[in-house]
Amino acid sequence: MNFEIRPIADAALEARIRARLDSLTKPQGSLGRLEELALQLGLIQATESPKIGHKAMFVFCADHGVVEEGVSPYPSEVTRQMVANFRSGGAAINVLCRHGNIEPVIVDMGVGRPTRNFAREPAMTRAQAEHAIETGFAHAAHADTLGAGEMGIGNTTSAAALFSAFSGLDASETAGRGTGLDDAGLARKVDVIRRGLALHPFTNDPIKTLADLGGFEIAAITGLILGAASRRRVVVLDGFIAGAAAIVARAIAPASLDYAVFAHCSAERGHRKMLDFLDARPLLNLDMRLGEGSAAALGIGLLESAVNLYTEMATFETAGVSTSR
Amino acid sequence: MNFEIRPIADAALEARIRARLDSLTKPQGSLGRLEELALQLGLIQATESPKIGHKAMFVFCADHGVVEEGVSPYPSEVTRQMVANFRSGGAAINVLCRHGNIEPVIVDMGVGRPTRNFAREPAMTRAQAEHAIETGFAHAAHADTLGAGEMGIGNTTSAAALFSAFSGLDASETAGRGTGLDDAGLARKVDVIRRGLALHPFTNDPIKTLADLGGFEIAAITGLILGAASRRRVVVLDGFIAGAAAIVARAIAPASLDYAVFAHCSAERGHRKMLDFLDARPLLNLDMRLGEGSAAALGIGLLESAVNLYTEMATFETAGVSTSR
Repeated sequence: MNFEIRPIADAALEARIRARLDSLTKPQGSLGRLEELALQLGLIQATESPKIGHKAMFVFCADHGVVEEGVSPYPSEVTRQMVANFRSGGAAINVLCRHGNIEPVIVDMGVGRPTRNFAREPAMTRAQAEHAIETGFAHAAHADTLGAGEMGIGNTTSAAALFSAFSGLDASETAGRGTGLDDAGLARKVDVIRRGLALHPFTNDPIKTLADLGGFEIAAITGLILGAASRRRVVVLDGFIAGAAAIVARAIAPASLDYAVFAHCSAERGHRKMLDFLDARPLLNLDMRLGEGSAAALGIGLLESAVNLYTEMATFETAGVSTSR
Repeated sequence: MNFEIRPIADAALEARIRARLDSLTKPQGSLGRLEELALQLGLIQATESPKIGHKAMFVFCADHGVVEEGVSPYPSEVTRQMVANFRSGGAAINVLCRHGNIEPVIVDMGVGRPTRNFAREPAMTRAQAEHAIETGFAHAAHADTLGAGEMGIGNTTSAAALFSAFSGLDASETAGRGTGLDDAGLARKVDVIRRGLALHPFTNDPIKTLADLGGFEIAAITGLILGAASRRRVVVLDGFIAGAAAIVARAIAPASLDYAVFAHCSAERGHRKMLDFLDARPLLNLDMRLGEGSAAALGIGLLESAVNLYTEMATFETAGVSTSR
């Protein structure tokens, strides 16, 4: 894969965007994070007039060999069942996309064709990991504003393992209850991750670590982030799984996260620490822990509000409103 | 005014709504606050099938005599100018309402006809306060889902004074920079509030305290909350000013806040403490501090998402998805 990713920083453009924000009929800075989102999107698109354009939510779906270790209260079969639910429009992400005018794109990255069990062997070959990254990368061409979500029974285990590998944190700090593990299940999950980490020593080769511990859908999100950044498009990331993909993307190309918006801090234990590790400030904190892209869909709504405000509000001058004395 | 306000609690209905929530194709509780919002709206409307219906955002606008003390960096004239901006569609709240399909209702409660300076005399007569409450109360008949915002140069001073009066907190803990006061301005504001509190001793008569320290728009929001509660409608409250109105509403009718959704914690100093005093958990934390109803408009969007999910998601049974083992 050949791609070029540049940081979005541009002092002259930033000054022009901030001048426009400060000309709008509101106290300076009073729209808070919404002003920052408008600025970020302008810098991403390298324009004073950012646009949302066509919106798509990618729900990358895949199964995980590590499920055989008993790390999820749901059987792998549920991944396939939920994909059918996505295709018939009955899942949470469908409802949110429908009302948010976001195209849902369901991508089968390995449903029923799981990765191998990372507690026993590498989850993927390097070629598999690269192929999954390339698949995600290619999808970034599909829309102007991108959302990243996922479905995959067992994938919080894989995401926590990646987070531990890159951060050095013990699995007891990165693993959570996922879809609803009990205490015994959580202890088992922590143990499985520790075994995986011991089996696959960390090196400075992020694609190897991704192949060792990751999942096909996580690799695809990594690719989507890299693809978004290489095309100067924004990508709104869902929760804990997308965060693990962001860690990998940052290790491959640090500037890629300039193009990312972190939609929320989920209720999954470890997500707050993961966001801190990513230096990310999430937009929402609604105790959600569903995945699919559900919080990313809400985040796209906030991004759209930010752009609408930036684009459509009157200025002090045109509205004849006095500025502060 | 005669009205009856009942708590929304209904154990049997709550059990039915929770059963429906748990039947939807997602791990139990995984939509977090969105599930709580759907439940709250069901209990408010006393139905298993809550609806958003017609949405209206009330922007109550009024001027404040206390501005003569130099408590705002903007002149009172800006209230009238911003009302003109609201009427021509150029303000932030117009943009957010337009895209959220919310009817903006701009209500002139006293623009250019300010309250008196509460640092020297009662801001309103009791009759004026009651009339403003009744005006807000009547507006609750206008729509199914209500939002409460405001515009009034000087009104963070009035809101902080009310918060101090009801909570016993010193003005240094309740007053903030409002639209952008400098340090000297903030010190002046704290002093003005302390003088007002000394001049108007707190009694157990909330309408008297509202009249002493409040504003016409704050009284109207108090009335809107009471009106919403008496009609079993939800009211989504904006920020610091609406919070002060909620404190008064609670003092008049404690169950009225069962009908309120607190949209956000603003960047205004004192708002976090105010929300704690109200036992309120805000939905958003986006460093906004604009008022107008801007955060309430976003909050209505989240409420709508919650209802859409509750209403439209498939169940485990209809979608053929396995539940946890």
